[in-house]
Amino acid sequence: MKLSIAVLFMTLASSVNSFNMVQTSPVRQATSLASATATTGVKRNKNFAKLAGGYLFPEIGRRRNAYLEKNPDANIISLGIGDTTQPIPSAILKGLVDGAAALGTKEGYSGYGAEQGKAPLRERISEVLYNGLIDPSEVFVSDGAKCDIQRIQNMFGPDVTSAVQDPSYPVYVDTSVMMGQTQELDEGKGQYDGIVYMECNEENGFFPDVAASPRADVVYICSPNNPTGVAATRAQLEQTVKTCKERGSILVFDAAYAPFIRSPDVPKSIFEIEGAKDCAIEVNSFSKYAGFTGVRLGWTVVPEGLKFSDGTPVRQDFNRVMTTSFNGASNIVQAGGLACLSDEGMKEIDNLIDYYLENAGILRKTFTELGYRVYGGTDAPYIFISLDGKSSWDTFSEILEKAEVVTIPGAGFGPGGEGFLRLSAFVPREGVIEACERLKKTMKR
Amino acid sequence: MKLSIAVLFMTLASSVNSFNMVQTSPVRQATSLASATATTGVKRNKNFAKLAGGYLFPEIGRRRNAYLEKNPDANIISLGIGDTTQPIPSAILKGLVDGAAALGTKEGYSGYGAEQGKAPLRERISEVLYNGLIDPSEVFVSDGAKCDIQRIQNMFGPDVTSAVQDPSYPVYVDTSVMMGQTQELDEGKGQYDGIVYMECNEENGFFPDVAASPRADVVYICSPNNPTGVAATRAQLEQTVKTCKERGSILVFDAAYAPFIRSPDVPKSIFEIEGAKDCAIEVNSFSKYAGFTGVRLGWTVVPEGLKFSDGTPVRQDFNRVMTTSFNGASNIVQAGGLACLSDEGMKEIDNLIDYYLENAGILRKTFTELGYRVYGGTDAPYIFISLDGKSSWDTFSEILEKAEVVTIPGAGFGPGGEGFLRLSAFVPREGVIEACERLKKTMKR
Repeated sequence: MKLSIAVLFMTLASSVNSFNMVQTSPVRQATSLASATATTGVKRNKNFAKLAGGYLFPEIGRRRNAYLEKNPDANIISLGIGDTTQPIPSAILKGLVDGAAALGTKEGYSGYGAEQGKAPLRERISEVLYNGLIDPSEVFVSDGAKCDIQRIQNMFGPDVTSAVQDPSYPVYVDTSVMMGQTQELDEGKGQYDGIVYMECNEENGFFPDVAASPRADVVYICSPNNPTGVAATRAQLEQTVKTCKERGSILVFDAAYAPFIRSPDVPKSIFEIEGAKDCAIEVNSFSKYAGFTGVRLGWTVVPEGLKFSDGTPVRQDFNRVMTTSFNGASNIVQAGGLACLSDEGMKEIDNLIDYYLENAGILRKTFTELGYRVYGGTDAPYIFISLDGKSSWDTFSEILEKAEVVTIPGAGFGPGGEGFLRLSAFVPREGVIEACERLKKTMKR
Repeated sequence: MKLSIAVLFMTLASSVNSFNMVQTSPVRQATSLASATATTGVKRNKNFAKLAGGYLFPEIGRRRNAYLEKNPDANIISLGIGDTTQPIPSAILKGLVDGAAALGTKEGYSGYGAEQGKAPLRERISEVLYNGLIDPSEVFVSDGAKCDIQRIQNMFGPDVTSAVQDPSYPVYVDTSVMMGQTQELDEGKGQYDGIVYMECNEENGFFPDVAASPRADVVYICSPNNPTGVAATRAQLEQTVKTCKERGSILVFDAAYAPFIRSPDVPKSIFEIEGAKDCAIEVNSFSKYAGFTGVRLGWTVVPEGLKFSDGTPVRQDFNRVMTTSFNGASNIVQAGGLACLSDEGMKEIDNLIDYYLENAGILRKTFTELGYRVYGGTDAPYIFISLDGKSSWDTFSEILEKAEVVTIPGAGFGPGGEGFLRLSAFVPREGVIEACERLKKTMKR
């Protein structure tokens, strides 16, 4: 006897109901959940116990929501998480819509694609974004840079040492801790033992001297930087590549904000630096290019010749991670990625970036006029404001309460971020103007 | 001076060109890539060195392509990888298309969503697929079951022991090895030391006696099973839950093929079994429900009360993985998921499943009539054929060469799969009919 799914879900429903009969009362269920039987004999991963607090951005969201609960009529403006706000422009949108619609036809339907991404997209990334310097076979298309950083960590495993800029995007450190590359958090320093923190401060232009830091196997550099908004110069990157090559380190270069670079000689890719193919992996994303933060599309470049100390190609192991624990980016989304890399799509991206950079300019101007030292915001969507040593979490709370504006405390990006505040230019124009009006009052010195 | 992106890519292009000048000749580049400088001082992750061969399905693809290169006119039919082939039906398609189109409007645009998935989708999964037995807060929406298995492994870390059905979906074992939960491959046995292989064979109806196997921290059970196509009975699952609870093991239940279950008393979810919320995590996927293999959408249920031995809720650590190293499933795809769970969408899914089950019936009938012992294919899209001890890789090659049909050798799923062949019902009807005509000749006994 063949039953329909609907009928079977009813069957499931009725068996579920009969199960519910046993523990109808919510109290009883709660008791059952809290009972000793729910505590298994499986030891918690000891590396997770090392993690201090939750991941930064959900914590910001939690504090924002807590404020909203107390002040339900609050008109909050977010200059917090770097989340795009502008609709996807028409040529790129058409790529996404057509990509979806095609799945309803016999000719256009596609199931599993290559885990590394569709060949035409890998080719276009190679051609349009790297001018052919990178071979399509070196490009791995993914669902985003954050996810790729975890996959890179899975590839490296627990036995490597890692170096990060301080402050930096928290995912590098958190995933290092989760993978077991570190010891415990030194609460006094706010740093994990076993990670090399490369100081970024006003004196060194927020770019670390890698050669002056202890050697690490893996060196994470983000440029344009999150959170400081500072883009590394060609000379800085040349020096970094030189040091990594001399030391036999692998440089993981996060270029997710590359499209914001407008200064002519600032490299948009690490592969513009001679020798980088011998030491670097590049992580990138369509999120900030094309407003794809919710759409999910990124890529990682692993040069063919890059090898571990035993001669195994790094690409071989990264390919193993991609094929074994990933199943490709969504086919619809990859169609959107192809549309991004058309001539029309690239123009649309250019306009989107213009818009956010103009927002950044408004934020820069406001805080400069208020007498703050302001960094970033010219080749990046973030501006980084010195609070002259004042606590960044206190300032975050003060601004949230007095101006109803969400910012990100620099300390959320590591101890080196203390005393700074990150503002994001990803906000509609009217929001940035209104936020600046409010901040002029709250942040007046 | 503000430059457009297009101009900047030209700038990049010219700098790339000048870089290319240094190593114009492809030969020189190849030499450079192969040079000693490209070998870094970073040790390869020792766990990757343990892995035997590549991931199964790319290996199948490689062999298929090698055959095609030698025989470019071959008309190959694939009964190999379980990849959906039928277009997405209209109500579900509309969800995807509308989800994409909305991103072009101010009102419909969305950026980052909750990493755990959109609230309405988590609610619909709870209501429609679990009849409310599972709370929406226990549902984590993702880009697929394969990816979730890796994330579950990242949560458990290297210090747990794992048990798998033998044969089983290769991702459980491969990710265990990659995470460092195992020792080396015992080449004689074809098994990794440190993993508990729970034998599934014709005698035990392809379902293991967990209680008769050594205890493991984490027990992976897939039902309906891949590759055997056998769905576990209620009694078998009750016994498994009982054993896991007694032993303090966590059961990871992979229900990706649940919609194929048509036998009335076969559970579609582990949470139909009393006590499962005290010991089980369930992984699931829209891939096979709605032809979303390329679209990418899945979910994992982690009950609130499930705890590690130190009392830490498992959900807390899984949430840390999801927020730190994942950024949510695509918003477009989640809109498609919501459409799947509408009344109309559920009917469409029902029809799709009917279609594939009819294919499975045709395959079953063909091989039964040829005199083979045939398993699965009634509550699952796979049928598993006994070759009476004959090598499954040899049979795979023979069928590829003589019938130009791609199958999957049982040995690809672990040593327990040797002597069996997996056939997939995910193929257009005309393909399954033609394949059966050819196989009747090749596989005649």
